[in-house]
Amino acid sequence: MNPEGTPSEQAAARDARDPLASFRDEFVIADPGLIYLDGNSLGRLPKRARADVVATLDDEWGENLIQSWDRWLDLGTRTGDVLAPLIGARSGEVVLADQTTVNLYKLASAAMAASGRTDVVTDEGNFPSDLYVLDSVARAAGGRLRVLPADPDPRTVGGALDESVGLVSMSLVAFRSGAILDQRAINEAAHAAGALTLWDLSHAAGAIPVGLAENGSDLAIGCTYKYLNGGPGAPAFLYVREDLQHTLTQPITGWWGHEEMFAFAADYAPASDIRRFLVGTPPVLSLVSASAGIEVTARAGIAAIRDKSSELSRWFIELADRSLAEHGFEVITPRDPERRGSHVALRHPRAWQVSRALRARGVIPDFRTPDVVRFGLAPLYNSFTQVFDAIETTAEIVASGYHLEFPTARGGVT
Amino acid sequence: MNPEGTPSEQAAARDARDPLASFRDEFVIADPGLIYLDGNSLGRLPKRARADVVATLDDEWGENLIQSWDRWLDLGTRTGDVLAPLIGARSGEVVLADQTTVNLYKLASAAMAASGRTDVVTDEGNFPSDLYVLDSVARAAGGRLRVLPADPDPRTVGGALDESVGLVSMSLVAFRSGAILDQRAINEAAHAAGALTLWDLSHAAGAIPVGLAENGSDLAIGCTYKYLNGGPGAPAFLYVREDLQHTLTQPITGWWGHEEMFAFAADYAPASDIRRFLVGTPPVLSLVSASAGIEVTARAGIAAIRDKSSELSRWFIELADRSLAEHGFEVITPRDPERRGSHVALRHPRAWQVSRALRARGVIPDFRTPDVVRFGLAPLYNSFTQVFDAIETTAEIVASGYHLEFPTARGGVT
Repeated sequence: MNPEGTPSEQAAARDARDPLASFRDEFVIADPGLIYLDGNSLGRLPKRARADVVATLDDEWGENLIQSWDRWLDLGTRTGDVLAPLIGARSGEVVLADQTTVNLYKLASAAMAASGRTDVVTDEGNFPSDLYVLDSVARAAGGRLRVLPADPDPRTVGGALDESVGLVSMSLVAFRSGAILDQRAINEAAHAAGALTLWDLSHAAGAIPVGLAENGSDLAIGCTYKYLNGGPGAPAFLYVREDLQHTLTQPITGWWGHEEMFAFAADYAPASDIRRFLVGTPPVLSLVSASAGIEVTARAGIAAIRDKSSELSRWFIELADRSLAEHGFEVITPRDPERRGSHVALRHPRAWQVSRALRARGVIPDFRTPDVVRFGLAPLYNSFTQVFDAIETTAEIVASGYHLEFPTARGGVT
Repeated sequence: MNPEGTPSEQAAARDARDPLASFRDEFVIADPGLIYLDGNSLGRLPKRARADVVATLDDEWGENLIQSWDRWLDLGTRTGDVLAPLIGARSGEVVLADQTTVNLYKLASAAMAASGRTDVVTDEGNFPSDLYVLDSVARAAGGRLRVLPADPDPRTVGGALDESVGLVSMSLVAFRSGAILDQRAINEAAHAAGALTLWDLSHAAGAIPVGLAENGSDLAIGCTYKYLNGGPGAPAFLYVREDLQHTLTQPITGWWGHEEMFAFAADYAPASDIRRFLVGTPPVLSLVSASAGIEVTARAGIAAIRDKSSELSRWFIELADRSLAEHGFEVITPRDPERRGSHVALRHPRAWQVSRALRARGVIPDFRTPDVVRFGLAPLYNSFTQVFDAIETTAEIVASGYHLEFPTARGGVT
């Protein structure tokens, strides 16, 4: 017998010494037997989010009515300040507003207008919505979007830059492979060529210590409903380095970005601070839930989250190598723990059927076309035992051919 | 004695025969004595919105987790179809998404790009955020925003048009005066000059029968948190006439506007229908509450709402003439019931102090700089007796000088 015990015993031992184990109690767990490995798509419901949204309904909207705006008005900036340390930003550099893609459009447009240049550089590993919007912004600037192969190294990025490129925009953690790009070196390459950088942190915020300031990043955006547990479609965030803020003007010049929004002046005058990147009235219920999710995540601390995340994904890959490789699964996430985020992606020719069969057996991963099953590892509520059980279940499904009972064509939307 | 009784008795008699009286029970009324006349800024909380949001937290996000997207994915288009008859649009022409100002930017940009023209026409009575964004869009098109005096008649609009103007965009009901513009005639004038029209319906939707199709309107946007009772900052709506949809492409080309959003294609291909005006993941909790508010409003029916609204505002103006004119109040809302929306605006040199004093006495209007007190009349939960009491309270406050006890400078944000 292995001196460390069976894999199942090893998992239990790791769970017993997990400093974040108690955080699972911060979340609503309707079915304790469910192995939810899709926190990279929709994080779980924090108990506090439920309580805060209900209080917002009853005490604020229901009772205090319009007067509640005294409290809601700066909720986006206050929450940005709570989020800031999770991504290595300073107070006043982050705000919650709009959706991820709208924020990308605002910041990319502002950066290109300030640069006077025409082209934008990205990579194939970036989220499709980002590719579409960056293309739209580059065309509006009279240029084009240059798309590098997925997960490029800094030298490749540097080689693609010239004086036409005003902006380099990529996902820090790739949504498909889970690879982390070299933020600092890509920033340096961009700056050397006179371009700004705009990072999509959707799969990074709440999962890895982003270190925006220490890595010299200029701009960033990201969603709050994955590892930040902000709730379905909750407002996104945006980050603008403090010394850049006054140099950038975004095109969706709404009243919330005005220096004095309640003056109802005839002409637009952008606020002098991060508020100039706001547009209009935020969806308060969803903003309240985002705020609660971010608070819970911030309380755990990004260092502890990252430590556990690295261990969970290392454990996942170790077990996958042992039990799944023989069944045709290929780990496409980087094996170097420094280079991967908080999900592990497996390629399999019948990935869609496998993902459906897993759901039927109480394990929820997600699927990314055409042949990838993603397993999100959320340190605040996932355990080492759950990883072990998920791998065992996956192996059983494929060994028994159970997945072949499911349709080959994609049906539902999730 | 007046054969109709005292004003107070008249109000009670009108309330007794009000066909919408029972709709007050559809809303959470925490303090039955409060006279809430700010539904033109934030509509009250429908009981159904509370129930639906709590169910979304518990049963959907909390329990079904990611699988709830099967239900959420088309909530914006389904809700658009419920809203459509309230504004005289057809199924497939309306969708909920983003915020009002973001939607204005998307549709105005799309219209200007399609026109190949440079200028936009609006009026001073339009909401400031609209003025700012229309200016931004016109500049991006290489032209400028031409601003007519507030509440222009169709001839004035027609006179301002030439072959440089690609878009005419105004608020159908002016946020300050409450005046209704001549939608049909302005559409005709715009079309005669080869321009499209884009109406902001924020103060119209749920208050008056807009009749977008029958009046020949091209595009519209609006918020859902006023007379539609959708909740604070709830997602806005947008309308694009069916036969125009395929001719317009908006610049914020997010994945939700893609023909096949889950194909994750490298290139953007806009959906063939109203979905091409979507961008990204909507804030579900706020969208659910918007959906509930719209459902309640649609159930009452816009004809009944308009009938009661006209009677409420006529009653308000009649009483204001009798009791408030002598105290320095001027009705700046049109006296022709056909030409006014669902709020009455009073000008007074001490409007800010009056609005604060009213709050202290349990009457909630709102204030618009520099000297306007707005009284929103929401037929679903306001009564004729409340209008009477509000006018009496206002008269008492100014007669006694009570308002002078409040600061002259604006403090809070609401």
